[in-house]
Amino acid sequence: MGELVDTNSPYLAAKLPPMGIELQQVTQARDDIGVLIQAFKQAFERSDLVLTTGGLGPTDDDLTREAIAGLLGEILQVDSQSLDHLQDSFRQRGATMPSVNVKQAYLIPSARSIINTMGTAPGWWVEHQRKIIVAMPGPPLELQRMWEGQVQSQLSNLTSGAVILTRSFKTHGLGESALNELIAPLFQLQSAELGMYAEPQGVQVRVRVRAQNNEDANELIYPVEAELRRYLGRYIWGVDDQTIEEEVGKELKRQGLTLAVMESCTGGLLAHSITQVPGSSNYFRGGIVAYSDDMKVNFGVGSSVVREYGAVSPQVAQDMARAVKHLFGADIGVGITGVAGPEELEGNPVGTVHVGLAHNGNLRHFSYLYPPHRSSVKQRASMQALLELSNLLRQLDEGNGCD
Amino acid sequence: MGELVDTNSPYLAAKLPPMGIELQQVTQARDDIGVLIQAFKQAFERSDLVLTTGGLGPTDDDLTREAIAGLLGEILQVDSQSLDHLQDSFRQRGATMPSVNVKQAYLIPSARSIINTMGTAPGWWVEHQRKIIVAMPGPPLELQRMWEGQVQSQLSNLTSGAVILTRSFKTHGLGESALNELIAPLFQLQSAELGMYAEPQGVQVRVRVRAQNNEDANELIYPVEAELRRYLGRYIWGVDDQTIEEEVGKELKRQGLTLAVMESCTGGLLAHSITQVPGSSNYFRGGIVAYSDDMKVNFGVGSSVVREYGAVSPQVAQDMARAVKHLFGADIGVGITGVAGPEELEGNPVGTVHVGLAHNGNLRHFSYLYPPHRSSVKQRASMQALLELSNLLRQLDEGNGCD
Repeated sequence: MGELVDTNSPYLAAKLPPMGIELQQVTQARDDIGVLIQAFKQAFERSDLVLTTGGLGPTDDDLTREAIAGLLGEILQVDSQSLDHLQDSFRQRGATMPSVNVKQAYLIPSARSIINTMGTAPGWWVEHQRKIIVAMPGPPLELQRMWEGQVQSQLSNLTSGAVILTRSFKTHGLGESALNELIAPLFQLQSAELGMYAEPQGVQVRVRVRAQNNEDANELIYPVEAELRRYLGRYIWGVDDQTIEEEVGKELKRQGLTLAVMESCTGGLLAHSITQVPGSSNYFRGGIVAYSDDMKVNFGVGSSVVREYGAVSPQVAQDMARAVKHLFGADIGVGITGVAGPEELEGNPVGTVHVGLAHNGNLRHFSYLYPPHRSSVKQRASMQALLELSNLLRQLDEGNGCD
Repeated sequence: MGELVDTNSPYLAAKLPPMGIELQQVTQARDDIGVLIQAFKQAFERSDLVLTTGGLGPTDDDLTREAIAGLLGEILQVDSQSLDHLQDSFRQRGATMPSVNVKQAYLIPSARSIINTMGTAPGWWVEHQRKIIVAMPGPPLELQRMWEGQVQSQLSNLTSGAVILTRSFKTHGLGESALNELIAPLFQLQSAELGMYAEPQGVQVRVRVRAQNNEDANELIYPVEAELRRYLGRYIWGVDDQTIEEEVGKELKRQGLTLAVMESCTGGLLAHSITQVPGSSNYFRGGIVAYSDDMKVNFGVGSSVVREYGAVSPQVAQDMARAVKHLFGADIGVGITGVAGPEELEGNPVGTVHVGLAHNGNLRHFSYLYPPHRSSVKQRASMQALLELSNLLRQLDEGNGCD
């Protein structure tokens, strides 16, 4: 019914350009055999390759096989090899295959089945009139394993070898129009296509080139990257899939430093982000979520600081950083205090955020005001703390940090 | 290029059934005028109503207006009223309108413009051959305000008054096939259509009915809901958009209880989830992320417990719950310890999770083994802790809790 967010097509869309495959259209169609056949027909006429996900389950709603058979005018028949494999996989889990699952062993003459290593539904590889349809399962993990393990390499053999390479540069602290002005000359380049995408964490600049192979493509990108870095310098904090928590983790590890955090308005999100990185236990000592004034003081924040400046203040953010650094015996402490909403606090409007950093005896703080949406305040405050931390680490590396 | 996740169409898809509008298909098309006109043509032939988002910006890539004009064979002309409005909105921000933005004031004879209260790009309401196209901006906030403020009510006037109502029942602890068996009789109902959707937090059972109005629709759903609850009882933990953290928050508030958590492998995610709920500061005292054995002991976990059973053990989870309850002076304490990966810990495989609960002098613990994916282990462990907490709260309410 369309109300679930589709992450499968973005996943596949990102895989295609490096293979030289250009995405033309994405279609989501209802579980209705007529609608599905029509959608397949239009896709098959439009493109050389049609990728589908979902509709391979055992129930009456699962109609992908039926729709492909309908499109090609072929008859579904149970494939005994697939049936054996299905029955085996149920047997291994100590179960008997329900009879409805038989339809997962269907094949048509133009199709061969693709083994699903993560589930019961096999995929289909269909060739017809020099065009290809690949039907893959809907659960993201099953789809991804099937794509990476089998489909991608088979398709690579068929493409011309030309590639489209994209590199995204993640910036922070510049609006779309300011950024546009700074890098305007680069939009005139013939060798690369530039685009800008505003995301909650900042604007991404995307560079796209076409070449005969990866090496050539990289050679086209290098000079553009150099120019971008010349124009944007520190506003760029990452490339492609890199996250700021990975970036920070890499630097902490490289510099042999440890980290602890005390959070108020972000409520654990900062610690959660940091611990998303595998191996973070090497540098992350731990965190405190101190949601009340009392608790902040209990964990070492000066009661006089809270009294004098109020819980939502740069001074308290800084003192939280100092206190948690001490409490966990870490090299660096981070403190966040602010107002996530829905109600303002001690006269501070929703969206107020203060970030404190402590390293050795040195302290610094930063203040922000974000649009008043609870979960976006949490997201942006946590992201900002990581960016400030990343700046600090770069300065420490260059020998002009706060110590 | 398709690699960004589209949240606009799920947003709109969820709005349509209660208005009696049935979604047939969702299409994402490239920023190419030929591709766009073709996509519009197929949609316009297929359906009575076509909703579009995006492509209304000022740049050369923004081609929605051009495509609709191309589809209908009409000529784009600058609408002076829209132009005034555009120039005003730039002036209010102390800026002069760049000349490229003039195209945002384009209209065709079949279209009238829809004011964008959150940005510069006006929408279009197009009527042609008794069919309707509504073009709305791409940024989610602009789209949502335009939909809620203007488009939805205008469309409501045109629909027949029939409604399609959907209610989702969120379950936990039962697999899809076990669930299927339990509620099999309900699939035969004529009055409602049932569907099952496996999600990471558990399987959802969705009930869908059609009726002349909301009241009739609800009357069709009630008996199905009663049957579902009779078959599934406690396996159902929520309905529709409800989250387990909201559910838990509501119960804590109602029973006047406070909460504190100590997390190891979930790294702050549990506290983050709890604090996503507005007003959580009323019952959430705070949390500790104790990533090392030392830190667990520092915050009150018995060193002998850690030594005797190991950091990843039911006993330590339980002692973390006890310790953090005491530390924060809360009524209930939750402890989570486990192995998120990538490496096993003290002989415990990745995916091992122990949850402890403390309420008054009573302790309980639960153990799980999840598939070994770091972020999914964190998600599932955090979800599970909230579900156990919800069970405890229900038992306390019924007077057979652990005290």
